[in-house]
Amino acid sequence: MSDDTLHFDPNRPAVMKIHDWPTGPYPARVRIALAEKNLQARVRFETVNLYKGEHKTPAFLAKNYSGTLPVLELADGTFIAECTAITEYLDALDGAPTLTGRTPREKGLIHMMSRRAELELLDPISVYFHHATPGLGPDVEVYQNAEWGFRQRDKALRGMHYFDAVLRGQPFVAGDVFSMADITVIGGLIFAGLLNLLAPAGCEALQAWYARMGERPSVKNRVTMSERADA
Amino acid sequence: MSDDTLHFDPNRPAVMKIHDWPTGPYPARVRIALAEKNLQARVRFETVNLYKGEHKTPAFLAKNYSGTLPVLELADGTFIAECTAITEYLDALDGAPTLTGRTPREKGLIHMMSRRAELELLDPISVYFHHATPGLGPDVEVYQNAEWGFRQRDKALRGMHYFDAVLRGQPFVAGDVFSMADITVIGGLIFAGLLNLLAPAGCEALQAWYARMGERPSVKNRVTMSERADA
Repeated sequence: MSDDTLHFDPNRPAVMKIHDWPTGPYPARVRIALAEKNLQARVRFETVNLYKGEHKTPAFLAKNYSGTLPVLELADGTFIAECTAITEYLDALDGAPTLTGRTPREKGLIHMMSRRAELELLDPISVYFHHATPGLGPDVEVYQNAEWGFRQRDKALRGMHYFDAVLRGQPFVAGDVFSMADITVIGGLIFAGLLNLLAPAGCEALQAWYARMGERPSVKNRVTMSERADA
Repeated sequence: MSDDTLHFDPNRPAVMKIHDWPTGPYPARVRIALAEKNLQARVRFETVNLYKGEHKTPAFLAKNYSGTLPVLELADGTFIAECTAITEYLDALDGAPTLTGRTPREKGLIHMMSRRAELELLDPISVYFHHATPGLGPDVEVYQNAEWGFRQRDKALRGMHYFDAVLRGQPFVAGDVFSMADITVIGGLIFAGLLNLLAPAGCEALQAWYARMGERPSVKNRVTMSERADA
């Protein structure tokens, strides 16, 4: 069993590939994690065109059965899909986790809040996009259930109120420190912004937190970073 | 910041509470994880009656905004919801993770496969149950979208074929060792069994693996364990 930590050197050339869509909210989660861990120089980005349905081709499904982006490809050809899994991998590389928690309690709370941000905010917005808007266009969205999509939009708006309440009591989504859970809520608000889905009135704490998050270099430069890498 | 590892002693009396439904497929994931970590004596179970909608009351929603079981309650009053988060907490307690991976690559693959088992098997079966069957009854299932529910049932059946293919190539869901990813697939097949949703013909590798899993004490005794704890 290999222990990648032993071979980790942030100054080595790029050895990992991210199958990516530069402005996608889920890929943003991994780009932010990469920048927070200062691993940008270790990866190169390969664009998978969502609007052409390239993520639903047999070749891509062999890399990720679920047909979603992003996917991390390791130097040995291993594919790691799912943002939480990719973040776990990246955060463990240097043996000094900063995004996924150090103590049992931190790990539990960060994983809970990140999953909750998926369940109550990011994933419902994605379902709304794919089912109750034109989404990626008729060639890609071959089945839509608009009623379900609108229900999920409403769920996401309720989720914004929930995270607003959380952020009235603490500076970050999972407590006192920035973590993967913040990144997941940021992904949700990036997606909401793309769809002009405004936070409901009264969500001042959520909006103030999001403004603070937008000042972090990892968040501010996330698209620029991948454009540079693609160039 | 407290480090629970320092205070961990498996011989101390119960200090954690699991808000639980004894035969539920999601609670089963945590009961299996508890038994694999030999932590049964550290917890007591408190039943939340799903069929009476006790998980949707304001009192319970204050513990878990998403209104789902199980929820782990720590001695200090912290609530940790979401099976993956609870498993991360429990697995880290003794500083010797056996369920969530030791190396970055193991962590990435286990989290990916566990999430995939939720996305492609367990969660779709749950949606099918709540939307296209009587579910928890008319008082609890106040909104149903049967078309979406049946789509999710079909997705779960495709998921069984996927995991069958995985298990033709390796002994466990995430590779060579038993992990959280196996537990999540077990949760999916427990739920499928409750609904008489049979694995499609040809899934021999999945069925052989499930028979092997059923022989593990953690899986075989999971309900008995909680009955003893409730008694």
